[in-house]
Amino acid sequence: MVAPTGITAGLINLLEVFIIAASVGIFVAKVGRFPYTIALLLAGLAVSILGINIDITLTHDLILLVLLPPLLFEGAATTDLDSFRENLVPVLVLAVPGLIVSILVLGVLGHYAFGYPLLLATLFAAMILPTDPVSVLALFEELGAPERLSVLVEGESLLNDGVGVVVFSALFALISQTPPNTDLSELISPEVIAETGLEIVVASLGGLLVGLAAGYLIYRVMVNLDEHMTEIVLTLILAYGSFLLAEHYFHVSGVIATVTAGLLIGNRGAEYAMSPQTKISVFNTWDTAAFLVNTLIFVLIGAKTPIHQMVDNWQLIAIAIVLAIFVRALTVYPFTAAVNRFSRRDIPFSYQHVMVWGGLHASIPIALVLGLPGDFPNISELRSMVFGVAAFSLVVQGLTMSNLLDRLDIVTRTETEELYELLLGRARAVDSALDAAERLHDRGDLPTDVYEDFRGEYRHEKEDLNTAISRLLRENPELRREELLVGERRVLKQEKSAIMDATHSGVISDDIGERLLEEVDLKLDRVDTGRSTVRDDPENEAYEEFWRARVAEYGLDFSPSDD
Amino acid sequence: MVAPTGITAGLINLLEVFIIAASVGIFVAKVGRFPYTIALLLAGLAVSILGINIDITLTHDLILLVLLPPLLFEGAATTDLDSFRENLVPVLVLAVPGLIVSILVLGVLGHYAFGYPLLLATLFAAMILPTDPVSVLALFEELGAPERLSVLVEGESLLNDGVGVVVFSALFALISQTPPNTDLSELISPEVIAETGLEIVVASLGGLLVGLAAGYLIYRVMVNLDEHMTEIVLTLILAYGSFLLAEHYFHVSGVIATVTAGLLIGNRGAEYAMSPQTKISVFNTWDTAAFLVNTLIFVLIGAKTPIHQMVDNWQLIAIAIVLAIFVRALTVYPFTAAVNRFSRRDIPFSYQHVMVWGGLHASIPIALVLGLPGDFPNISELRSMVFGVAAFSLVVQGLTMSNLLDRLDIVTRTETEELYELLLGRARAVDSALDAAERLHDRGDLPTDVYEDFRGEYRHEKEDLNTAISRLLRENPELRREELLVGERRVLKQEKSAIMDATHSGVISDDIGERLLEEVDLKLDRVDTGRSTVRDDPENEAYEEFWRARVAEYGLDFSPSDD
Repeated sequence: MVAPTGITAGLINLLEVFIIAASVGIFVAKVGRFPYTIALLLAGLAVSILGINIDITLTHDLILLVLLPPLLFEGAATTDLDSFRENLVPVLVLAVPGLIVSILVLGVLGHYAFGYPLLLATLFAAMILPTDPVSVLALFEELGAPERLSVLVEGESLLNDGVGVVVFSALFALISQTPPNTDLSELISPEVIAETGLEIVVASLGGLLVGLAAGYLIYRVMVNLDEHMTEIVLTLILAYGSFLLAEHYFHVSGVIATVTAGLLIGNRGAEYAMSPQTKISVFNTWDTAAFLVNTLIFVLIGAKTPIHQMVDNWQLIAIAIVLAIFVRALTVYPFTAAVNRFSRRDIPFSYQHVMVWGGLHASIPIALVLGLPGDFPNISELRSMVFGVAAFSLVVQGLTMSNLLDRLDIVTRTETEELYELLLGRARAVDSALDAAERLHDRGDLPTDVYEDFRGEYRHEKEDLNTAISRLLRENPELRREELLVGERRVLKQEKSAIMDATHSGVISDDIGERLLEEVDLKLDRVDTGRSTVRDDPENEAYEEFWRARVAEYGLDFSPSDD
Repeated sequence: MVAPTGITAGLINLLEVFIIAASVGIFVAKVGRFPYTIALLLAGLAVSILGINIDITLTHDLILLVLLPPLLFEGAATTDLDSFRENLVPVLVLAVPGLIVSILVLGVLGHYAFGYPLLLATLFAAMILPTDPVSVLALFEELGAPERLSVLVEGESLLNDGVGVVVFSALFALISQTPPNTDLSELISPEVIAETGLEIVVASLGGLLVGLAAGYLIYRVMVNLDEHMTEIVLTLILAYGSFLLAEHYFHVSGVIATVTAGLLIGNRGAEYAMSPQTKISVFNTWDTAAFLVNTLIFVLIGAKTPIHQMVDNWQLIAIAIVLAIFVRALTVYPFTAAVNRFSRRDIPFSYQHVMVWGGLHASIPIALVLGLPGDFPNISELRSMVFGVAAFSLVVQGLTMSNLLDRLDIVTRTETEELYELLLGRARAVDSALDAAERLHDRGDLPTDVYEDFRGEYRHEKEDLNTAISRLLRENPELRREELLVGERRVLKQEKSAIMDATHSGVISDDIGERLLEEVDLKLDRVDTGRSTVRDDPENEAYEEFWRARVAEYGLDFSPSDD
């Protein structure tokens, strides 16, 4: 009836991508334990080798403006702010100075290895080095890797995407503004470095501010609203809006704005501004959206890999792969060691290996290289190298990740721990169901009769759960011990925050506060090294509080109660 | 950094639409009882009157290929096949012969009223007469209209969209193939009528077959798969794929293909090929997608209404509105009367009035008129009339619908339900009075004596109310059952949200969280099909929680408390 038009052709192409994706999904479901994103990439590569043309142009704007904001937003929204904060120091150190140093190092190495002008080699470094969490995290989830490792890897990736794009843009502007045939090395002067540094700071802080402002605005609206569909629309507006606002109105980092907004809404927003129904709808929607976008990205990356160019440039690609891994190792180990020196909770060596090998380079590098104009110096080589490093890191590093985790003995969850988590999770669900029933009853939405049935049923289940949990803890003393330490750490954190508040408000003076804090830190350290401060272990002395010593010193008549 | 390009501009325009939509959503949530779609349309109109330009071109292809398939698929998938079958005769009679007769009648009337050639007037009739269920159904749901009325209205709309498009296309081809300036009436000959009739039959049956084949294929794949994200992708492929396959490869009705596929997957598919988790994910995704698409359509219809043209053509529009309603009445009453004569379950007169007045003309007519070429005869008048009839039916008919239902006494809750609501409402009032009195007393605004009198009085009333409610529930087990299920659904949502929180914050790992969520989904599904998980029904076994099985498997020495 209607002749195939632009829209029809576009739809058919999208359908092709999703048919490939569905086939991959069915394959992965049947075979099991093969990472979905990597399978998508390989299917895309196969399609491109078979010469089937998928007529969707993968452009810089498509990736950066359309596909990336939902991924960044979803990634940030599902990051737990508390764990993120606890690991903020290593994450920040690796994502900001770590990334910048590694860009400079790879720039210098690339200058010699590829024979590029220093500035161009540095641009390549800024383009290739930001890491992508997607595939690694999917794998971590599947294998049950420790929460902290996930937070470290994901946190770094979320932040260094922003920093990488900012550095890249600054360098790109620098190269574009110079007349052709200038010796690019001449451009590097102290003023230029200072100016670029300032640009990076302004863009990052600006992005942070835009994200906070936009996120807070939407948060305020959502607090006063309980209408899950409209709230989905609001988060949609926030994800894309914060990005566009930052990039096009304030010319600051859109990536950082969207990540900040996502962290805010996913944590504070979910806690205070969403009803359970809204929370479920919003997170499910974003989960599905991120899945679809990821699917699209990975198939397209595979299908659009310039295989012929890459065959021609295989030597450059090989060098780039080795250099990228080498430089990443060169940054992760020393920077983490420095952080470990000043922090109580060490990042173990085994984690550091995973962080080096898990630094996959995918969508951001590809978006950036596709954004370079066609007449850019060495453009064909740059494209080959970026696609080459991306393919290698996704396929080889991605596929060997689970072996690495096994080797390093990182994914260690016993059957007991699994059962314990299951019981704990169910107990939480039952508690909140009881709360909900009580609230509904109090509000008159649930008749007393019906409420009593509910309560009976859930209390019964709760009792059984409690019995099962106590039994399990009794039969597994080491599990009990671990739980004790986790609980103790939380309680100590609370102590610390109370002392800080008291100092802050002037109830106690700063020096006394300092001493009290020192004591809590001492206890925290004890806990971190696996000793409890509550239980009287035969090997470890019971902890004696500082004030007891002071009371005795003072000579106060005071007989402590018996233990 | 990057100059605003096509994609950026497109994104900004989409964001504008969604910002309008969110404002409308917030407004509707605060005001209540104002239909969301009509508010969207009015907001769109306001935007267009204020001269704010939303730079999205509303084209035939955009509506018919991109926006309509998800709406049709979702509409069909959420239609209960059993009720649909029970009402198949009236629905089919109205959607096929009913629609065709009304097109012919309106063609003849329009020929005289507008002075158009007969063929052109018939084309206009085919374009304007298909009905749109969206707004009416939303209203029905809100007001609690009877299930059967919804099925009649929705069923007719889903099918007559397909038939209308087929008739329109046949007539359009006829007009286009003739040289300009031919007297169009000459074209109407017995052969042409027979040929057009055959085309309609072929296109409808062909669409049905394509929908069945595509739906069955996807169904077979889904039976052997349990991977909810891939199954979402499969339904996405089905919704658009069946449409494109029908339209562009077989040149039969895409609308009928998509509706058939949706009916199949939403019923047989949901029952036999989806796990509870998959079912919930798939339906939630489609629910959200349909909401977003609807939002887009109604804002755009409002914003793109050609107001100046419409002012010029107001007389034609007025005639068109009257004729459209008149012709609809002229078909619905006699055809329903005929059906009633041969059927066991009469469609009451009151329903027929609603079916006449609820025949809204929106997206399909607008898509079709926008698809007409710019040099089509009387194009400006045709556009004005279609937009005019659409706006009138949506705003005037849509907004008066609830009055009509009230007048006709259709939204009939039983006496028991009414009493129950009355008691519940009073109980709420008493609760909040008690709260208020307590607050006033605490603040010292109410002397203790007086407060105690108050409290005594209200508590007494509250007790009596509680007794009355319990009695009523005890005497009406079906009411109690309904309350139980409603309450249970809410409590289960709360459970789900608690598990999501625990996973999010890392208390339990993702895979354990997924298993717990799966269990809640299973329970939700039980509740959705009318079975409680709390009460031990004699017919249904009590639900056994997953963790109990795991505890037994693990071999934990655990004797659960007695029931």
